[in-house]
Amino acid sequence: MPQDFVDSTLFLQQVSDVCQQQRWRFCQHYQEFPAGRALLEFALAMPLGGKQIRAALVRAGWLAAGGPDADPALIKLAAAVELYQVSALIHDDLIDQANTRRGFQTTHTWAAKWHRQQDGQLTDQLFAMASAVLLGDIYLSLADDLCGQAARELDSSASISLNQAFAHMTSQVALGQYLDVATAAFPSLDPEVSLHLAKDVITNKTVSYSALHPLRLGALAAGGSKQLLEKLSQLGKAWGFAFQLRDDQLGIFGDEKETGKPTGDDLREGKRTVLIALTLKNASETQRELILGLLGKADLDDSQIAQIRQIIKESGAYAQHEALIDSYAKTAQNVISQLELSPQVLELFEKLGQQITSRRL
Amino acid sequence: MPQDFVDSTLFLQQVSDVCQQQRWRFCQHYQEFPAGRALLEFALAMPLGGKQIRAALVRAGWLAAGGPDADPALIKLAAAVELYQVSALIHDDLIDQANTRRGFQTTHTWAAKWHRQQDGQLTDQLFAMASAVLLGDIYLSLADDLCGQAARELDSSASISLNQAFAHMTSQVALGQYLDVATAAFPSLDPEVSLHLAKDVITNKTVSYSALHPLRLGALAAGGSKQLLEKLSQLGKAWGFAFQLRDDQLGIFGDEKETGKPTGDDLREGKRTVLIALTLKNASETQRELILGLLGKADLDDSQIAQIRQIIKESGAYAQHEALIDSYAKTAQNVISQLELSPQVLELFEKLGQQITSRRL
Repeated sequence: MPQDFVDSTLFLQQVSDVCQQQRWRFCQHYQEFPAGRALLEFALAMPLGGKQIRAALVRAGWLAAGGPDADPALIKLAAAVELYQVSALIHDDLIDQANTRRGFQTTHTWAAKWHRQQDGQLTDQLFAMASAVLLGDIYLSLADDLCGQAARELDSSASISLNQAFAHMTSQVALGQYLDVATAAFPSLDPEVSLHLAKDVITNKTVSYSALHPLRLGALAAGGSKQLLEKLSQLGKAWGFAFQLRDDQLGIFGDEKETGKPTGDDLREGKRTVLIALTLKNASETQRELILGLLGKADLDDSQIAQIRQIIKESGAYAQHEALIDSYAKTAQNVISQLELSPQVLELFEKLGQQITSRRL
Repeated sequence: MPQDFVDSTLFLQQVSDVCQQQRWRFCQHYQEFPAGRALLEFALAMPLGGKQIRAALVRAGWLAAGGPDADPALIKLAAAVELYQVSALIHDDLIDQANTRRGFQTTHTWAAKWHRQQDGQLTDQLFAMASAVLLGDIYLSLADDLCGQAARELDSSASISLNQAFAHMTSQVALGQYLDVATAAFPSLDPEVSLHLAKDVITNKTVSYSALHPLRLGALAAGGSKQLLEKLSQLGKAWGFAFQLRDDQLGIFGDEKETGKPTGDDLREGKRTVLIALTLKNASETQRELILGLLGKADLDDSQIAQIRQIIKESGAYAQHEALIDSYAKTAQNVISQLELSPQVLELFEKLGQQITSRRL
């Protein structure tokens, strides 16, 4: 099937434009309310996109199912996934108490400041929390609406289940987020359980959100077969795991200049990653106690981080972890080879695979 | 058109059952995750329903458009609206820092207690907030999914826009919630602006959530005409306003035994209702200062409440407010008479009207 391929940059620009139009329509409609205007203006100024990897995945799934490139329904669906990401990030940042995102202040940070500057009658913290909860809810609704718009433009019989598939993604991601918080709140003392939980979090959060569902949604919208959807699930799982494991490894061993975040911060936050769980499982009693004593200490210094790195390597966890990444990358390659893609689409999948397994999403 | 009418109690029971099945399916699917289990078990035990007025409104809209009673799609759509309410209440209660709802502990209250009991590693407050944000997100997704299920079962051409109409409701309600918080945080000193804002909050929160959208969604799903949808919007607006104004009046003048909440609490919370805005607009300079000095004081006593009541009556605001309720009730009656309903459906609308304008939703 000949496909009129558009440049990826152009596609992602079109997705951004649709996101912008969607939130603009909503905000403009309610600009008349003086009380709401500040939040809406903030919402309009928030940066969209980042690397838009999820939009690219929606397109990949769509093309794999034989959908025509640059179709308006595809662009709307990809934009819905990107707007949903904004929603998830607003709630995520509130929960993580992060101050900035994509170089811009986070919603609760902005709202606390604004409340203070305007001499608000509530507490800064309460107003900040309420603003972030509700703006996240608004973005999720705007995403749902765009998904509905995409469904209306499709003539495939699958379009009727598109909103359900979208809801499936959003419920799973929220649960994954909760599992992430809950494992930080209640870390298991049993290394086997820890490892199991670390994988659960990846399956529900990273995999479903950053790979599997965007791929599947695209294919579903283009009327892809059940077998194709099954293959894309396998691919999404492999990509999602490979990405997250690489990300966790770079968080401890990476170069700050390349990763963009201070190396060792995951250790300072006490994250129970698969790499840490493997290390705790392999380590001697003394090593385990040493790591558990350091993990989560906000003031870890370079020599302590070097100590942990050494145990990770010596225990054999580093090599096991690398082998795990390798096996996921091989699985992904294997699934892609079964997809029967045109040369152009195959090239797109290979590029995406590189981007996902070697970079930050 | 002959309609095989089911008893309202039976209908509402069927709606409850579908809500229960929907959340059971989700929770059961994820019960294997030890970290998530406690929240999911809490979610399953949360009471559903209350008076289920929104489910009844979905049914009324559906029947007005000639839909067959007790249709599976109708029941699913009504259940979607009820599950959405749970989502909105979880976020609402977090923002209002309420401890109980429907006689059951609220999500953040439960989560804080659980985190303390289990010696969690985060702060109780952070874990509580994260749990409420994410469980609210999950319930919204479960509602979206049920709405999608309803759409799939419909054969009306309007079914394709059902999820969009649902998203329209949820985005407007979140904005209305924000306006409510923002007007409490930044009350206007200008009585005209205050009155305008109080009405904005009602339009976006009470009206859209408790009357207009549920009615419209039901009619839309049954393939109702544009004119019918327009009429139902007018009716929803009149009902929503009449309800909220009556509720505000009872909050200051009602009998605690009948309303179920301590009379005067709205004054203690400093709520800027239409009744208060009218009073501030009409009052003398001295009266205005007296009210502004008392409003929002958590320890208001009976004699101070009596003082405020007297000013509300003397200023003429009470009578104006009553006339306003009356005019909304008349508008509702007038719109209903234009709907061309069968005697049975007409009776249903009249009962609903009584329930809405004389009781708490």
